Amino acid sequence: MARVSQEHLDARRRQILDGARRCFARNGFHATSMQDVLREVGLSAGAVYRYFRGKDELIAAIALEVFEEVAGAFDAASRSDDPPTPDRVLGEVMRIVQGDEEEENVPPPLLVQVWAETLRNEMLAEALEKGYARVRRAWVRIVETYQRRGLMRDDVPADHVARTLIGAAQGYLLQRALFGTGDVTQLENGLRALTSMALSGDTPGRPGRGDDAPGTPPT
Amino acid sequence: MARVSQEHLDARRRQILDGARRCFARNGFHATSMQDVLREVGLSAGAVYRYFRGKDELIAAIALEVFEEVAGAFDAASRSDDPPTPDRVLGEVMRIVQGDEEEENVPPPLLVQVWAETLRNEMLAEALEKGYARVRRAWVRIVETYQRRGLMRDDVPADHVARTLIGAAQGYLLQRALFGTGDVTQLENGLRALTSMALSGDTPGRPGRGDDAPGTPPT
Repeated sequence: MARVSQEHLDARRRQILDGARRCFARNGFHATSMQDVLREVGLSAGAVYRYFRGKDELIAAIALEVFEEVAGAFDAASRSDDPPTPDRVLGEVMRIVQGDEEEENVPPPLLVQVWAETLRNEMLAEALEKGYARVRRAWVRIVETYQRRGLMRDDVPADHVARTLIGAAQGYLLQRALFGTGDVTQLENGLRALTSMALSGDTPGRPGRGDDAPGTPPT
Repeated sequence: MARVSQEHLDARRRQILDGARRCFARNGFHATSMQDVLREVGLSAGAVYRYFRGKDELIAAIALEVFEEVAGAFDAASRSDDPPTPDRVLGEVMRIVQGDEEEENVPPPLLVQVWAETLRNEMLAEALEKGYARVRRAWVRIVETYQRRGLMRDDVPADHVARTLIGAAQGYLLQRALFGTGDVTQLENGLRALTSMALSGDTPGRPGRGDDAPGTPPT
């Protein structure tokens, strides 16, 4: 009877994560203390530490949530036999990552802080790697469909294309964080132009490194 | 007569920068003190501070040097009437950024630290923005040549393509930093596959956001 319902536990967890997101977005990861988070959510240390043992766990949980959202956004496209073009898929996902103008889901500067933190934080590195792997699998399925349908050369491992598309998204977010410029439309346009090129990739008469590379298996 | 020659000054500056690079690469930006740099280069504080007032100035100088190298690597391609394909250009530049296996020019983890540091360091932000602008101008020239030669749709601002290509490179470096995976060949393959798609970008019957976007002017 006195047992706390799962709904209650979930709601409490949600409340803490939302408060932490607000704190991190406002002041950055480093300048935010657990005390700040407690104040923000209006809960006691005991109540919060029951869910998260510290800032690192909070950050890891937030990062995983974002990856879930991102991967979820790929689901429809990755199950489709006729997935939208890369610019459409990436544009849609980036809009989810960004949230709307008033409330950014993940402010890019916070993301860059998380990346830097990941270099020295084992737990965060694991969480990020897991999320990254999930997003990559979704992209691989989409790319394999492009290739199966003859829309893209198929002598390149789908994994390499997946990495490159995720990289384009990461770079876009980095530019927003560092210079405050860039919007999703520019990323979509850039991809749209690149995917308009119709290059075979084997430009005759201009031998170069990597000519024999497309068959390299993914690592 | 007692005046120190410019060559001497340049060599001294070079010596300090090389030593700082080694320190940062070995221990990261945060864990490296000016004392470590002094020890590494075997010079007195007075001798070093004459060139650089602190760690921030060292990092900014190193970042600018890397951007110069990168922008320099674009020069030939950006002056050509028949520039290599995007995968070739980017592959070549990334090999320069990376250096060789034994001595990485800019270790990706250090790069991520610089990005994070840039968020709270005005001087670094300025240096990075300058370098980024220079690289972007080089890419814009290359993209405009693709467009002029009919290799790429020309209703997309070259600047958007430049941002996207730089983003792909940044994302690639980020993945190397965070997960220790990825090599230039994968990035080249990814781009090669994307530029093989021959999409008009206006997939009929699948209206989506951004359909009217290609004409958006660069910001």
